[in-house]
Amino acid sequence: MPRIDLNADLGEGFGAWTMGDDAAMFALVSSANIACGFHGGDPATMLASCRLAVEHGVAIGAHVAYRDLAGFGRRYIDVAADDLTADVLYQLAALDGIARSVGGAVAYVKPHGALYNRIVHDGAQAEAVLAAVRSYNPDLPILGLPDSQILQRAEAAGQPVAREAFADRNYEPDGTLTPRKEPDAVLSDPETVAGRVLCMVSDGVVIARDGTRVPLDVASLCVHGDTPGAVAMASAVREQLLGAGVKIRSFV
Amino acid sequence: MPRIDLNADLGEGFGAWTMGDDAAMFALVSSANIACGFHGGDPATMLASCRLAVEHGVAIGAHVAYRDLAGFGRRYIDVAADDLTADVLYQLAALDGIARSVGGAVAYVKPHGALYNRIVHDGAQAEAVLAAVRSYNPDLPILGLPDSQILQRAEAAGQPVAREAFADRNYEPDGTLTPRKEPDAVLSDPETVAGRVLCMVSDGVVIARDGTRVPLDVASLCVHGDTPGAVAMASAVREQLLGAGVKIRSFV
Amino acid sequence: MPRIDLNADLGEGFGAWTMGDDAAMFALVSSANIACGFHGGDPATMLASCRLAVEHGVAIGAHVAYRDLAGFGRRYIDVAADDLTADVLYQLAALDGIARSVGGAVAYVKPHGALYNRIVHDGAQAEAVLAAVRSYNPDLPILGLPDSQILQRAEAAGQPVAREAFADRNYEPDGTLTPRKEPDAVLSDPETVAGRVLCMVSDGVVIARDGTRVPLDVASLCVHGDTPGAVAMASAVREQLLGAGVKIRSFV
Amino acid sequence: MPRIDLNADLGEGFGAWTMGDDAAMFALVSSANIACGFHGGDPATMLASCRLAVEHGVAIGAHVAYRDLAGFGRRYIDVAADDLTADVLYQLAALDGIARSVGGAVAYVKPHGALYNRIVHDGAQAEAVLAAVRSYNPDLPILGLPDSQILQRAEAAGQPVAREAFADRNYEPDGTLTPRKEPDAVLSDPETVAGRVLCMVSDGVVIARDGTRVPLDVASLCVHGDTPGAVAMASAVREQLLGAGVKIRSFV
Repeated sequence: MPRIDLNADLGEGFGAWTMGDDAAMFALVSSANIACGFHGGDPATMLASCRLAVEHGVAIGAHVAYRDLAGFGRRYIDVAADDLTADVLYQLAALDGIARSVGGAVAYVKPHGALYNRIVHDGAQAEAVLAAVRSYNPDLPILGLPDSQILQRAEAAGQPVAREAFADRNYEPDGTLTPRKEPDAVLSDPETVAGRVLCMVSDGVVIARDGTRVPLDVASLCVHGDTPGAVAMASAVREQLLGAGVKIRSFV
Repeated sequence: MPRIDLNADLGEGFGAWTMGDDAAMFALVSSANIACGFHGGDPATMLASCRLAVEHGVAIGAHVAYRDLAGFGRRYIDVAADDLTADVLYQLAALDGIARSVGGAVAYVKPHGALYNRIVHDGAQAEAVLAAVRSYNPDLPILGLPDSQILQRAEAAGQPVAREAFADRNYEPDGTLTPRKEPDAVLSDPETVAGRVLCMVSDGVVIARDGTRVPLDVASLCVHGDTPGAVAMASAVREQLLGAGVKIRSFV
Repeated sequence: MPRIDLNADLGEGFGAWTMGDDAAMFALVSSANIACGFHGGDPATMLASCRLAVEHGVAIGAHVAYRDLAGFGRRYIDVAADDLTADVLYQLAALDGIARSVGGAVAYVKPHGALYNRIVHDGAQAEAVLAAVRSYNPDLPILGLPDSQILQRAEAAGQPVAREAFADRNYEPDGTLTPRKEPDAVLSDPETVAGRVLCMVSDGVVIARDGTRVPLDVASLCVHGDTPGAVAMASAVREQLLGAGVKIRSFV
Repeated sequence: MPRIDLNADLGEGFGAWTMGDDAAMFALVSSANIACGFHGGDPATMLASCRLAVEHGVAIGAHVAYRDLAGFGRRYIDVAADDLTADVLYQLAALDGIARSVGGAVAYVKPHGALYNRIVHDGAQAEAVLAAVRSYNPDLPILGLPDSQILQRAEAAGQPVAREAFADRNYEPDGTLTPRKEPDAVLSDPETVAGRVLCMVSDGVVIARDGTRVPLDVASLCVHGDTPGAVAMASAVREQLLGAGVKIRSFV
């Protein structure tokens, strides 16, 4: 029986500000990338998010980021490798301690936003992130983009990895994501997305923009948690998968 | 053979800013209260401080604080108990993870600045701090002021505590600290302070402002790390104690 | 023809986070208390808010606050008077510069949240706020609670003031606000609130919790901008007032 | 009689942290680049710095920066142009308001650190900075590197500029700064630096690393304010210039 993980970025509020409908999303996903305070997620929000994760049996991922509340971690920062290692270690340890206080634990690490995008190709920052994870717990998998520097280097160093695809993003024939500047980079129709997702999971294939069938071997599918239609989209994906007999389980 | 712990606030720089001569102080003390990022201490500074602590065999204390970089944690903040618990847990876990990455571990918790002063008498905030420590590791001792709410409540709950005195502060006949607004609240002559410290350790007595001999039973002496004469003062205290055959050892 | 000002807290988003429906609220009020970056309101949000204010002919108020993004300015901070003066001056000048860049200007100052509540009774912090406003522009009115320390001291010093009432708050027979811990402290029915508001404006009277008619002489009514029903409430108040021939105009 | 401006980065402390010996430096320079809160310089420090500037007759420059306290503004941030414009406008207006409260005013703008370096070649960020200055006060000069994008674009738009050289930096034969990775990029001997500075001012020439005499036409010389030998260096430069009959005056 096929299985797949659904992951989403959750716990991204900060103080009085909220982001997305976390309560609804925790009931739909199997893995939650929880913000660790550097782009969102104050300690009380982190604690509440970990409680929700434990209650729903959702795996907790450390959603580590550049230190940039004003930019929500979406802006590249030219941070020195040693500083980045310390920043990632700090966030990871903080979330893990909070998770353990409520009976959970960090089960994987997924870099956020601009850091996620940067370490697709920047080997030095990728190594800095890996050094942090390795020094904290070398058994923690990194969740990231197939063929990225971070996953390639993790595997070369014997660190576990998990590959993800994006449920609502279009793909190019070469298997890369359609750039966001393209008009059809992001898909918004829940049924279309749900159908594509089923194809990814059942056939190991994504239909690229030009109709090419591109092989895809991923352990997790990312659904968005912070857009207006996020809950409807995640629900549609979930129902489609369950209806086809696919188990939704964390990859860890 | 008598023994005592010397503790100081270290690792209080932030980014490009430094505070005190940490390199010199780590060679003089047996316990370091290391800032955790909320009043000082960015992650890279925390990492460097934990490395120094491990190298010098100095015990690592989590110097948890209100979230207030601009005020250096010296201003009371009316933070809700649940938020304070989460804030303390976050800081404690972050420092512990960083310490463990270099072969150390957090050995005790000492609240900083305005939080330290507040939980001498504020039971609700004291309980909030204790709840954080308990949820992380109930065996971690709290270092604080004798007869404070935080220590009384910790003991009542079965959590370990350690009492401290201040090497360079004057005392009232009732054993409380002379308020800082008094002209002779803080002593600045290293020889005088060293002599008082020896009296505290050998005789278990502090000479109050009016000459009264006040019994004092403490496990640790706090020396300042961030004043211009801090290194000279700590050196004088250390030499006086060693010369009198007192062992300087962490209380943990 | 009677007139009144309607004010609301707007521009309280920060980076990726939003707070309330600013676009709708700017069309309903005559004065906007715009966050200045210390409790909410990053510079780009401030600029967008000032543009909206200028477009709608809404007066711009500097919504100055304690430096506390994590607490949204709702927590008292024991900040020294000189530091508070500098903090308020910084926020006020920053917003005024941004407002002027789009053809507006700060027309009044309204302290936010915990600072607002504190300077009802704390004379030292009230003076600190006044000193900042005076040093920037002594002609700027302070919008605040009748009989508060800040307004009393402003008037004693010859600084202009404006008194406000809260549209959706209950009052005690002595004219003070019903404390929020009371179950009926906040009114949520738009029609009820609209009716009370009309009574305040037309008759200069508020009906207290026990039915007492309490005289009330205010220049402005505060409606909330950040609650789920904020737009509906402000709309109801606005329509009731306009229907009764009351002009809604800024007090400045 | 020849004249030149000496500028230094001052007011870069934050809360309890200090940076350099501002009291000494304000007596030596004619222009102070004062931090505006985004890389250093809390409001109270800004106020104190402006007071010192007014007392010493030193011109006040807005030392605007990326929002990055943890990185002291020394890390490039990929901030969107509109956000950068708002960030610069906020800082500039805040400092100007503070300066005016003590009888001064911002007389020029000098971007700091990574932003300074970026807008040497990044036209989009350069335009974003210029847009902020223009919208606040189009008559404010920009102080920057000769031939930089920011100065070229300012001149093309009719905004005033001032060119600066670095007293203690080595130069290449083509007039660019020797990169910091080169061993002799920074000169540390006060007499050597003072001699070079005199040559720059009297002859309009800098001696490049290879001995080439490179023409240099600058309105201001930057001396560092935050290094251990900063005061000695600035003193030596000042005395050499005064001894040679050069007047030290702000360029504004």
